[in-house]
Amino acid sequence: MPTASISVSQSPAVQYLLRIGDTALILGQRLGEWTGHAPVLEEDIALANMALDLVGQSRALLTYAGSLEGQGLDEDQLAYLREEREFRNVTLVELPRGDFAVTVLRNTMLATFLRLLWLRLRDSSDPEVAAIAGKAVKEARYHQQHSADWVVRLAQGTDESRRRMVAAVDQLWRYSAELFADDAVDEQAAASGLGPRWSELKPQWDADMATVMQHAGLEIPAPSKFVSAGKRGQHSEHMGYVVAELQYLQRAYPGGVW
Amino acid sequence: MPTASISVSQSPAVQYLLRIGDTALILGQRLGEWTGHAPVLEEDIALANMALDLVGQSRALLTYAGSLEGQGLDEDQLAYLREEREFRNVTLVELPRGDFAVTVLRNTMLATFLRLLWLRLRDSSDPEVAAIAGKAVKEARYHQQHSADWVVRLAQGTDESRRRMVAAVDQLWRYSAELFADDAVDEQAAASGLGPRWSELKPQWDADMATVMQHAGLEIPAPSKFVSAGKRGQHSEHMGYVVAELQYLQRAYPGGVW
Repeated sequence: MPTASISVSQSPAVQYLLRIGDTALILGQRLGEWTGHAPVLEEDIALANMALDLVGQSRALLTYAGSLEGQGLDEDQLAYLREEREFRNVTLVELPRGDFAVTVLRNTMLATFLRLLWLRLRDSSDPEVAAIAGKAVKEARYHQQHSADWVVRLAQGTDESRRRMVAAVDQLWRYSAELFADDAVDEQAAASGLGPRWSELKPQWDADMATVMQHAGLEIPAPSKFVSAGKRGQHSEHMGYVVAELQYLQRAYPGGVW
Repeated sequence: MPTASISVSQSPAVQYLLRIGDTALILGQRLGEWTGHAPVLEEDIALANMALDLVGQSRALLTYAGSLEGQGLDEDQLAYLREEREFRNVTLVELPRGDFAVTVLRNTMLATFLRLLWLRLRDSSDPEVAAIAGKAVKEARYHQQHSADWVVRLAQGTDESRRRMVAAVDQLWRYSAELFADDAVDEQAAASGLGPRWSELKPQWDADMATVMQHAGLEIPAPSKFVSAGKRGQHSEHMGYVVAELQYLQRAYPGGVW
């Protein structure tokens, strides 16, 4: 394994797959931070399970993206040897794990999105991607239901839990715009049949999230003009810390199992 | 859920189950610390899976211990409202996660022990304990094989990985004596048929570990007189930190999902 940082092909197909794989990877890492810290043991287990599913999805996508990429990169090189700006996850997943309200709302927003994306990717023109999607869509469905239940429960719980859930909506909602902001990567994926333009998922995401928010008695914030751009490599101030945490072992002991 | 700390019955059966349940819980928490930090993605997933298995085993045992205990305590009260000296895990699991060599050696020592214990507990006079053991023994077998493979790989890897593995043996081995130091809790469990005296597992543990160490080309340290006593509530200086990490959410927001 080379020890220097690597640069990844700007091929639209590779970029499209990295956007999904990196989003799953970083969200999985954020959820893993809850192990031993969840409010009840059952939830500790549920969050760890979701983290596992996401890291597994990410590993499958990074393995495949590496094989398409042309330099013979494997999934570990992609995970551990890229610099921050080479990561293509949406900004929403790199925000700190926050309190439990932030965690369950973020999970709901992303699982709702990823479920819709995996549903479409089952029909990808690329059979490898379609196979990964076939497994992942079931996982995302569970993540969506489980997390949405918590959003409702917290919003309708104590004054304190409701206050925190309202604060979470206020903090996170504006990061949803990025999910649906298309660019040339989406155009190319749609043209080749690799996968949908992400903007195509917006009407159903809006409807699914409206259902959750209505059950929770939460208001959907007015649209803002802010559009984060993590999937183009423009990350928030939190991403450097995320990458350092992910990579410190490889950086400290390059090329080995250390 | 009461917010004050709880005191648990000194009933030998309850203590016997808490020794196993707490050992699994704290080891699960230590393994969870690796999420997003393992040297390769595959191992990140494997460690998270083992953490999940262990927390699941712990939850089953704590639930059942709570039902036997007589105060109507549930597993979350047992996990989150006991003070440090009420935890009955062996000291070995509360040591800091250390480097990867420490982690895989500790896992091997404990999985070898727990596999032998679960094998015997499948014949427990208590059908509930036997049922928990029936599932857990399969998990422990996988943990044992997976971790032992890493011990061999690291010991026979680079100079650096071998140096670290030797240091891990030097650090951890002396904590194994506690696993086999019987007391009245063991006598009562053996008398009632709940489970074996832990000392009965020592010959097979010694043999299993000797096989691993031989494959790895590692020397087994000479026996020392040191016997840690975590399972009697006498913990190392690390345990306070472990408990604080486990409980801070419940302590900060008592009685809620916070």
